[in-house]
Amino acid sequence: MNEHSVHSAVGDQTPDRTEIYDEDGVIRADYVARIGAAIADRDTLLLKEHVGSLHESELGDLIESLQSEQRHALVRLLGDDFDYTALTEVDEAIRREIVDDLPNEKVAEGLEDLDSDDAVYILEDLDEQDQEDILAKLPFTERIRLRRSLDYPEDTAGRRMQTEFVAVPPFWSVGQTIDYMREEDNLPDSFAQIFVIDPTFRLLGAVDLDRILRSKREVKIEAIMHETSHPIPAEMDQEEAAQLVEQYDLLSAAVVDQNDRLVGVLTIDDVVDMIQEEAEEDIMRLGGVGDEELSDDVAATVRSRFPWLMVNLGTAVLASMVIGLFDATIQQMVALAVLMPIVASMGGNAGTQTLTVTVRALATRDLDIYNAARIIRREFFVGFINGILFAFVVGLLAYAWFGNGQLGFIIAAAMIINMLAAGLAGILLPLLLDKVNVDPAIASAVFVTTVTDVVGFFAFLGLAGWWFGLI
Amino acid sequence: MNEHSVHSAVGDQTPDRTEIYDEDGVIRADYVARIGAAIADRDTLLLKEHVGSLHESELGDLIESLQSEQRHALVRLLGDDFDYTALTEVDEAIRREIVDDLPNEKVAEGLEDLDSDDAVYILEDLDEQDQEDILAKLPFTERIRLRRSLDYPEDTAGRRMQTEFVAVPPFWSVGQTIDYMREEDNLPDSFAQIFVIDPTFRLLGAVDLDRILRSKREVKIEAIMHETSHPIPAEMDQEEAAQLVEQYDLLSAAVVDQNDRLVGVLTIDDVVDMIQEEAEEDIMRLGGVGDEELSDDVAATVRSRFPWLMVNLGTAVLASMVIGLFDATIQQMVALAVLMPIVASMGGNAGTQTLTVTVRALATRDLDIYNAARIIRREFFVGFINGILFAFVVGLLAYAWFGNGQLGFIIAAAMIINMLAAGLAGILLPLLLDKVNVDPAIASAVFVTTVTDVVGFFAFLGLAGWWFGLI
Repeated sequence: MNEHSVHSAVGDQTPDRTEIYDEDGVIRADYVARIGAAIADRDTLLLKEHVGSLHESELGDLIESLQSEQRHALVRLLGDDFDYTALTEVDEAIRREIVDDLPNEKVAEGLEDLDSDDAVYILEDLDEQDQEDILAKLPFTERIRLRRSLDYPEDTAGRRMQTEFVAVPPFWSVGQTIDYMREEDNLPDSFAQIFVIDPTFRLLGAVDLDRILRSKREVKIEAIMHETSHPIPAEMDQEEAAQLVEQYDLLSAAVVDQNDRLVGVLTIDDVVDMIQEEAEEDIMRLGGVGDEELSDDVAATVRSRFPWLMVNLGTAVLASMVIGLFDATIQQMVALAVLMPIVASMGGNAGTQTLTVTVRALATRDLDIYNAARIIRREFFVGFINGILFAFVVGLLAYAWFGNGQLGFIIAAAMIINMLAAGLAGILLPLLLDKVNVDPAIASAVFVTTVTDVVGFFAFLGLAGWWFGLI
Repeated sequence: MNEHSVHSAVGDQTPDRTEIYDEDGVIRADYVARIGAAIADRDTLLLKEHVGSLHESELGDLIESLQSEQRHALVRLLGDDFDYTALTEVDEAIRREIVDDLPNEKVAEGLEDLDSDDAVYILEDLDEQDQEDILAKLPFTERIRLRRSLDYPEDTAGRRMQTEFVAVPPFWSVGQTIDYMREEDNLPDSFAQIFVIDPTFRLLGAVDLDRILRSKREVKIEAIMHETSHPIPAEMDQEEAAQLVEQYDLLSAAVVDQNDRLVGVLTIDDVVDMIQEEAEEDIMRLGGVGDEELSDDVAATVRSRFPWLMVNLGTAVLASMVIGLFDATIQQMVALAVLMPIVASMGGNAGTQTLTVTVRALATRDLDIYNAARIIRREFFVGFINGILFAFVVGLLAYAWFGNGQLGFIIAAAMIINMLAAGLAGILLPLLLDKVNVDPAIASAVFVTTVTDVVGFFAFLGLAGWWFGLI
């Protein structure tokens, strides 16, 4: 990142990061404008020289920053110099838009140079007919490779694996292995491990590259390989696979079929993406949002959010019905209507806190049978103590506001009850959902706030009605 | 994972994963019980043979599953065979508990064998005095290395880097480099890249190991190194550093000081952990939870959650004051008190949906000046359309429930207004917070629900009061 390249003009062969992004990591407006101008001028030479040398992720960011027509023009102007890997870096809607705009022959040509995992990533979103048509246009071996991955269900290790890998027999020496890698042209673009297999392709072990470089030429591979390489069954869910790679700090992981035969490899960059995706999914589900993407249009967004709001309406009506039970009480003492949202809201927030911690601990497997009892106990006491603290604050507040000491005591008691309910619902509901194999993130939030609304309104209004003898 | 090892007894030298974990990835109760029995029997031999050969993450999981006294006994029984790296795999509270229980000499001995990043991870949580005492007991070079990392602020690349790395001059050949790695004993435990430096340690580039293995012995390193290795300034925030590594699919990243001198390396397993941590942080902040850990006790948990609940109390009181404005209206028509939580709750949920999407898109830098206008427009229309849809549903419901068509129209109008407010608050508030460099995840949730509560109550009760001429 030297001074010179920061100020260099577009057209320089290797663009510097600071030329493309500002200090917040956002792509620079002047940069996008210059590329936009080059597209408008149909300046193929400048585009090929400059955009052609971008990293795939930089090209992806650039594409996302352009207008729809500019994107199509850019891909067409770049022609064979367009790096199709960049399509794995953009939103699904944009990817589909670009691919749909191109003739299938062009797409097939573009995919041919890609690692199989990237090609599959692009292919899997297309409709069946386009997918088949593009596959048919690919060379035989490439087609077989991609089909094998596509045959595995979505979100499995088999679907995400790269089918290019380096494998050697155990009796080879380090020298033979190095010579093989020097001579062989048909190796993956990059790799961090080589695998050890028997003649039937059964996985025997793995060797990190630094082990090979540190061993003398005559050492046998079987002497330096580690046998516990944690092979991943191709049918395994990608979330589980990513957790294995993360747990054992693997640089890449072997993917095996039902007969323990090596069929592919999960590379660390894919694993990093999977971890991001899974954390993302939890956040989205906790927020009551489905599989939506930023590039979705209004209709798709409404469709994705409507169901969750509908569920919430059901629970809100339930809470209203509880209030309806006490309408006579409220009519006689309107202060109850003024204060009741405080009890419900505090419970809802306390419940969400416990819920958030529980859902994450379940996802990362930090919460299990060994500490569940302790955590349940802890949440009970946390709810109780926070309940008492806020009972005091809210009780005083109600007294000061309405000059009614009895009302203060009643809201204080309701607060303690609801905070306890919040803590228990926040931990027990997700544990229960997890037990019956429902993702706790997806349904817990609405259940927990239903509990805290219902308990909060019932405790406050019920106690008030009973105490003031108004029922 | 063969049949034999699954059924092998504890005491086997290399325990199989299926012996330790069940199919859900949770540590097996019978396994913990057997280790517990061995600890009770003070069976040092069995423990050393079995537990001594566990992967650090397995040992960490085991420690978390044991009772507090068992943990201390296990560490003492294992003695020099205890792998201190396992301490990086357990919760902070457990780590401190174990380290505090050990004499500082023992800790110093244990840390000596660790990679510097792991040693720093353990040291940084200790109180200053213990930290200094342990550092003083370490050999000079080791002490200097760790001090250098500890001098960088928490959550920076410098604090997280490993100070052991392999660096060679650009004029070396591949053959010389391989010979050096074969002869040199003092290399990091594992590495995925080697770095190229000039005599003053200035970073010139990096070479992935597979490049070296594929090149002939006589090829010069400078011919195969890539210059754009995206060096990371040691002061850079770890979140930003992790995003760089992720963006460019690096296997490890060079960390440089202010003079561009190579001072350390971020390894991919650390980067994976950072990505997890950062996603975790967003989830926790959105859920209104601070830096708490699962192992925290009741007091620590109450302390961590209280402030957020206090803020929520403030906003709940604000909403109550809005209701208080209309107490006369409510007294005359108690149905308003029954229905008003529906309007507020629907707005709160719709706001949270928009907020969740916005916060994540800001964190992953998918939302920027290029699409902000489009997304704001989209959220406006999504709020409007969902508002109309739910206005219809809720209007009919209110009519059916209270037999009052006018009330149905009023709640329908309030619903549209609040859903619009929810959509706009959900996107504009986090954008605003991001603009003034406040993490949008930390404060948005409470602001957004304040807006939807206040607008919801005000719109519904205000419209009703005006329409029925009751104010």
